[in-house]
Parts: sequence; C-alpha cells; structure tokens
Amino acid sequence: MAYLLRLPAKRVRPIATLMACELFDGDVDRAMEAAMGIELFHSFTLMHDDIMDASPLRRGRPTVHVQWDVNTAILSGDAMLVKAYQCMAEDSRALSVFSRYALQVCEGQAMDMAFERQVEVTADAYMDMIRRKTAVLLACALEVGAILAGADAAQQTAIGRFGEQLGLAFQLRDDHIDAFGDPSRSGKQRGGDLRAGKKTWLLIRGLGLERGRGSSTLADQLRMPSISRDVSAMIEGLISLGARDESEARIKALESEAMAQLEAVDTANDRKSPLRSLAAGLMGRVA
Amino acid sequence: MAYLLRLPAKRVRPIATLMACELFDGDVDRAMEAAMGIELFHSFTLMHDDIMDASPLRRGRPTVHVQWDVNTAILSGDAMLVKAYQCMAEDSRALSVFSRYALQVCEGQAMDMAFERQVEVTADAYMDMIRRKTAVLLACALEVGAILAGADAAQQTAIGRFGEQLGLAFQLRDDHIDAFGDPSRSGKQRGGDLRAGKKTWLLIRGLGLERGRGSSTLADQLRMPSISRDVSAMIEGLISLGARDESEARIKALESEAMAQLEAVDTANDRKSPLRSLAAGLMGRVA
Repeated sequence: MAYLLRLPAKRVRPIATLMACELFDGDVDRAMEAAMGIELFHSFTLMHDDIMDASPLRRGRPTVHVQWDVNTAILSGDAMLVKAYQCMAEDSRALSVFSRYALQVCEGQAMDMAFERQVEVTADAYMDMIRRKTAVLLACALEVGAILAGADAAQQTAIGRFGEQLGLAFQLRDDHIDAFGDPSRSGKQRGGDLRAGKKTWLLIRGLGLERGRGSSTLADQLRMPSISRDVSAMIEGLISLGARDESEARIKALESEAMAQLEAVDTANDRKSPLRSLAAGLMGRVA
Repeated sequence: MAYLLRLPAKRVRPIATLMACELFDGDVDRAMEAAMGIELFHSFTLMHDDIMDASPLRRGRPTVHVQWDVNTAILSGDAMLVKAYQCMAEDSRALSVFSRYALQVCEGQAMDMAFERQVEVTADAYMDMIRRKTAVLLACALEVGAILAGADAAQQTAIGRFGEQLGLAFQLRDDHIDAFGDPSRSGKQRGGDLRAGKKTWLLIRGLGLERGRGSSTLADQLRMPSISRDVSAMIEGLISLGARDESEARIKALESEAMAQLEAVDTANDRKSPLRSLAAGLMGRVA
C-alpha cells in the first residue's frame, strides 16, 4: 500500500474534493479524511486493475503484482478498500454516494474487460464504460466535497455533472493523445491502443466512417495479429476518414459542457477559480 | 457474486448477528441488513482467498476463478466488499467495528500466506493468525448484533470474546479433524494439511514435542516432497507424541472459555439458548 501511494501522482481527485468543499464554503479540514478516502479508493482500483490488465508498469515503476506477487496485490488492494471506507465513514450521506459510485467503477472495469472479448462495441457502449470506469470517481470526489460543505442537492448534482463531463473529456483526450500525441510529451508509445486493438471511441468511430465509405483499412489492420499491424497506416486512416477531427470536436464539446456545469453552480464567481484551473490542467492547457 | 452466494452454506455469521441482537432484546428486522453485510464480507473473503490459495473447489463446486477466471473473481470480490459496506452503512458504530475487524481479516490472510514461506512458525503466531483470519469475523458478527440492539460496551466486549474463543476453537477443531476425523463425515481427505505441510497448531506442537524427545519422524517427513510423505506415519507420530491429546485439550479449553463468556453476559438465562445451540453446532455436537 505504501509503495503505490508513494509513487508520484497528481492527486487530482482528493484535491477536487477539497476544492468542492471550499467552493461551497465548507471546512476543508473536515473534508481531509474523505479526500484521502477518495485517493485510497483510486489507488485500490489501480492496484487491482494492474493485475487484471497484466500491466508491468505504473507511473514508471514496477506494479505491485510484479514487484511482489499477485496475491500481495490482491490482498493489499482489499485492505486499501477497507481503509478507504474508514476514511469515508464519518458522514453517512457521503458514504452512501461513495458506495454507489464505487460499484459503478467495478462495473466499468467489468465492461472494459468484456469489451476486449467482444467483436463489436458501439460508441455509446464505450462512452458508458469510461463514464463508469473513469468519470464517476471524479464526480464522486466533487460531490463528496460538496456534501461535506453542506451544499444542497441541486448543487451536489451540478458539481457532480461537471466532474463527470470533465472525466469523460479527460479519458477521450487520453485516447486521442495515444494516437495523435507527441510521444516525447505523453511518455507513451504512439498508437499503443491501436496496436492492442483497444476499442476506443476514436477507433469505433473510425470503423463506422470507414464502413460508410466502403473502405476497410482499419478493419483489415485489426484482422492482423497485433505485432504485424501498421500503426502509422491506421493513424493516417483515422485522419483521412475525419475521425481525428470528430474526436477533437467531441472532446471540446464535453469540455464546454463541463465548464458550463461549473458556471451554473450557484456561488460567487471568484470561488470557482481553483476548479477552473484544475479543469484547465486536466484539459492539457494552462488557465 | 450470485453463484457463490447460492452455494449451500450454514450462514453461521449472519445468524450469529441476529441472535446477538435478540439476546439484547433488539429489533431483529433492523439487524437484517447488517447480517447480510457480514455474510457478503465473508463471501468476499472466500472468493479472494480461493484465488490466493489456488483452490479448485468451494463447497463441492468449482471456485469462481475456475468457473470463470481470476479477473472475474478479483472484481466480483471487490464489488461484494462494496456491497457488504452498503449493508453495514446504517449504524456508524457498527460500521467502525466492522472496518477494524475487516482489516484484521486481511492481516490474518497475509500472515497465513507468509507462514507458508516461513520455516519456523510458533504456536502463538499460528493462534494469532487464526484469530485474525477466522475468529474475529465471528466476534464482529456478534458485536454488530449487540451494537444494533443497543447493548452497552461491556456486553459488546463479552459477546465479542465469546465469538472469538468459539472461532478459535472451531478452527483448531477443523485442523484436528483434518488429521484424526472420519473422512466420510468430514468430506475431506484425511491428513490433507499434513500432506501440504501446513503449519497448524497441531503440527507445530507435534514438532516441538518431537524435538524435546530427540526424535524426528515429523521433521523427516516434512523434508520430503509432499507427494512422498507418509501421512499415516505422521498421524501415528502425532498420536504417540501426545499432540492429539494436547490438541483436544486445547480445543475443549477454548470451548469452555467461550461458553463462560456467554454465561457472563448479563441477560436472562433463557435468552442465551439460541447462541448455546449455535455454539454446540459449531463444536460438532447437538445441544
């Protein structure tokens, strides 16, 4: 547990909890435990997801199941989930929201694994998967902060929606960068998702556009074993089909929706600055 | 989750929660959710322990990681732990007790796995391990029932100790039956633990007694690969060393302590009958 928690991390989610608490004029010290609970839960999901995805590296270091073994990673994740609950236990409303979202995160991971075995995944199904797997925890972090500050139900909902839209945009941008980003800045090999045949929104849209035109560059590449795939040709295909532009437009639309939700929150305008900066950071540009 | 929960089971722990609630004149209906939470937590530990122990069978049926796969078992266990918390969330005192014991259960499993790699395990360390891994959850089940009935701290402690001692006795009896029980009644192959070299209290005591006498039947057998071990000779060794008698005496002593704790609880005597019957059942005899 300590090994994973000590790896460098942005701590976006617990910071979001504290910012949401401050936004609604709450006592940040009272939200500190819950913020830690959110980060412990996030770390628990990383520890177990890395086992399930057989990931060798996390934040540039060996994953727990590689550094120790699978059993240690299973059990440490379990203990971390219990510790997350210990941090979340003080407020029963926050606890109830947390559990509801925690189940959705499990469902999202189940969907993600199921999609690997499915031939056909729709764009809507992919969006629903990343909503559960990624976006709802940011929504949860913000809602919990709002609850602890005593915000009313409408405000909890608004700030939660801001987090959900922002989380969706963040994941789509992550997928986008995988194909079109600068590998020296992203720290990832370009086209790793395409090589693996991961059915991202981008690839699903590309396949749909391709079918509409009666061509089959992407589909042909996907039928090959992953080692033989021409990832550059797939990237070129996505660009010429217009999938890159669609993806960028979709990300921008989600980001706008997120910011609109934040602006709709009924508090003094200048109180929203920290969350605007946090969102801008997640969107990959400086506020 | 449904597959594991539908396998035949005795439901000792949730029944214990309801009985403890009734013992202190509580509303059993109000304890029902918490009782289900205890059983869900127990099922979560079975699902993950079966992965860690690479167990092919649970209650005579394929384990979840065999019937589906390891990832499904990890994730279903995680979701079950969240659902356990959803059931436990209503009472904050019960929740706090539950989390404290849940961490001990994780620690007990960690100790159990560590002992497999350790050459020397002391009898005290073994007792500490089974206390965490097995006994505390029965204590937790009873304490939660008492808390929900509004029992005071002293009564919570007394009923918890009853559960802990009973749980210890139950595990030692389980180990005892593995070596000396009637396989047709226990449903297990005789001496499975000895074959596997599991460092139970019984085997640890046998090795200690043997060393005191300067003999080495058990130690010699343990140095052999497990497939070559003469399990009958090990059982005979345990009997002639007096380890069987010591084990039986220890179990009886723990059972007596457990029953003394129950008698010390300050309620009308006839209210204790259900828990006396439950204990008698766990002790392998009819009340």
